[in-house]
Amino acid sequence: MNEPANEPDLDPSIIPTYEDVEAAHKRIEPHIHRTPILTSEFMNELTGAELFFKCENLQKAGAFKARGASNAVFGLSDEAAAKGVATHSSGNHGLCLSYAAGRRGIPVSVVVPRTAPEAKKEAMRGYGATVVECEPSTTSREQVFADVVAKSGADFVHPYNDPRVIAGQATCSKEMHEQVGELDAIIAPIGGGGMISGTCLTMSNIAPNTKIFAAEPETADDAYQSFKSGQIIADDTPVTIADGLKVPLKNLTWHFVRNHVSDILLASEQEIIDAMYLTWQRMKIVMEPSCAVPLATIIKNKELFAGQRIGVVITGGNVDLKKLPWM
Amino acid sequence: MNEPANEPDLDPSIIPTYEDVEAAHKRIEPHIHRTPILTSEFMNELTGAELFFKCENLQKAGAFKARGASNAVFGLSDEAAAKGVATHSSGNHGLCLSYAAGRRGIPVSVVVPRTAPEAKKEAMRGYGATVVECEPSTTSREQVFADVVAKSGADFVHPYNDPRVIAGQATCSKEMHEQVGELDAIIAPIGGGGMISGTCLTMSNIAPNTKIFAAEPETADDAYQSFKSGQIIADDTPVTIADGLKVPLKNLTWHFVRNHVSDILLASEQEIIDAMYLTWQRMKIVMEPSCAVPLATIIKNKELFAGQRIGVVITGGNVDLKKLPWM
Repeated sequence: MNEPANEPDLDPSIIPTYEDVEAAHKRIEPHIHRTPILTSEFMNELTGAELFFKCENLQKAGAFKARGASNAVFGLSDEAAAKGVATHSSGNHGLCLSYAAGRRGIPVSVVVPRTAPEAKKEAMRGYGATVVECEPSTTSREQVFADVVAKSGADFVHPYNDPRVIAGQATCSKEMHEQVGELDAIIAPIGGGGMISGTCLTMSNIAPNTKIFAAEPETADDAYQSFKSGQIIADDTPVTIADGLKVPLKNLTWHFVRNHVSDILLASEQEIIDAMYLTWQRMKIVMEPSCAVPLATIIKNKELFAGQRIGVVITGGNVDLKKLPWM
Repeated sequence: MNEPANEPDLDPSIIPTYEDVEAAHKRIEPHIHRTPILTSEFMNELTGAELFFKCENLQKAGAFKARGASNAVFGLSDEAAAKGVATHSSGNHGLCLSYAAGRRGIPVSVVVPRTAPEAKKEAMRGYGATVVECEPSTTSREQVFADVVAKSGADFVHPYNDPRVIAGQATCSKEMHEQVGELDAIIAPIGGGGMISGTCLTMSNIAPNTKIFAAEPETADDAYQSFKSGQIIADDTPVTIADGLKVPLKNLTWHFVRNHVSDILLASEQEIIDAMYLTWQRMKIVMEPSCAVPLATIIKNKELFAGQRIGVVITGGNVDLKKLPWM
């Protein structure tokens, strides 16, 4: 791993290591699914690549974030756990933290944008969470959350800029490597960068020749802007159908992105919807718009992936079935 | 297997045997997926049973019927194959026969009700089929089809009342048994009875203690009426959202149903839609209304399945994503 040069606000001692990933995998195994890899001749013919879809939409609570959330929750001492956990989340991290906390039987509070799908809020409450609504901007979210934590004293499990969460997400690419062997590249969507950081952490240690690509909506391209300019750029209120990808990079995820990502590729809203529809239609899986961003970028950058073995992370399946984007 | 008493119109020599199933499995293995089994804690808690979902929605061409169609197509002599194959089908058998014929590179004609989903007709043409439309009744379908066969001389591969097709569908429960071991019961939807007959054929040979249940829409309950009255009853124009289940039993499938099925359970249209929505929402899989009939009947007959290991066949995933029943 590179030195965190030009990352003056990052304490190098908090950067998770591959030993943390191995410990995380042992810790969370009883609480997560070892999700299947699906392949599709149709998708291979369409793209000219050999695609391996890691189906985290079939994960517990419907998203890869069950990995990081479980690692944080089950790594707490009994004393810390008794005070509960809290987070802010555009949806899946809040849901998955609720799942993990419910499984351990400890309190959990989640600050959620009022515009997030009602189904996600209901599901959080179903796991026993206290849901607190905020405005759909990063600024409002952080203000409301500070109040919640001040009152509860709960352990803050950040949706992505937390070494425990990154080590947990890193178990996804560890499993992929065990399931399909060497890959030429792995591509995953990027929002705050938790999944991408975990992928960088794992692959730089066990398969350093595997390239890491991040895929982002054109209309929420803050990670792309950061990557190209060499410093974190945040957009307070991006608008995209891929509602899990609206949050900005933070210092820990920026560390992994700047040091290990080969490139960040962009897709338009219509390209994302088309790729989502195509995946539902041909692969028969329910997945969120965010998950379709990688396929959309592969389809429009075929020359980059042709003839290669590519891992594609299907990050979650918690979509409102009554509000599908092609309706 | 019982003697075909009271089945005067059935020639016992055409009844497929378990040796036919084993031969079919070898023949079709290069052309089909060994589909995964999914489980769901949510569904187990909901029903009180331990459910194993065999995901034939992830099968080639999106339905279990790829098994029977491939067995028929790849079992033909080169001479017979050169003349092509033909069938009538409310959708999936036509699609799957088109897939298998396309894979072997032989001509295929399919007679399809004009009311069948446009997506299915397009997909058949995509595999190279000639699609001929008929009225949405069994009578019209059989008349139009007779013309097609008379003109082409193609080999008629019936959607279900064909020993090659039944032996092919029987490989599905053979795989289930290999994947999850002994089951207390298997439940599958029933239309013409091809999947149920194949399930009876396999389980009566390799696991005779496993009960076979068939699930049928209340508004297309001709198999239920046949089962209760002891003779085939056909309804020419049933109306149900489960459009794969509108066809009647025929002599060969009736043989298996009357001799090996424990019971036929019914579900209303709303119960089918609710079970379909619940499966999409919680299991993140795209499946047809027909596939939801078994789960709907398990939910309303919990006492029958409580505490037992139950195999549930998810028969196909070829649904029109722009016309979902909860929209």
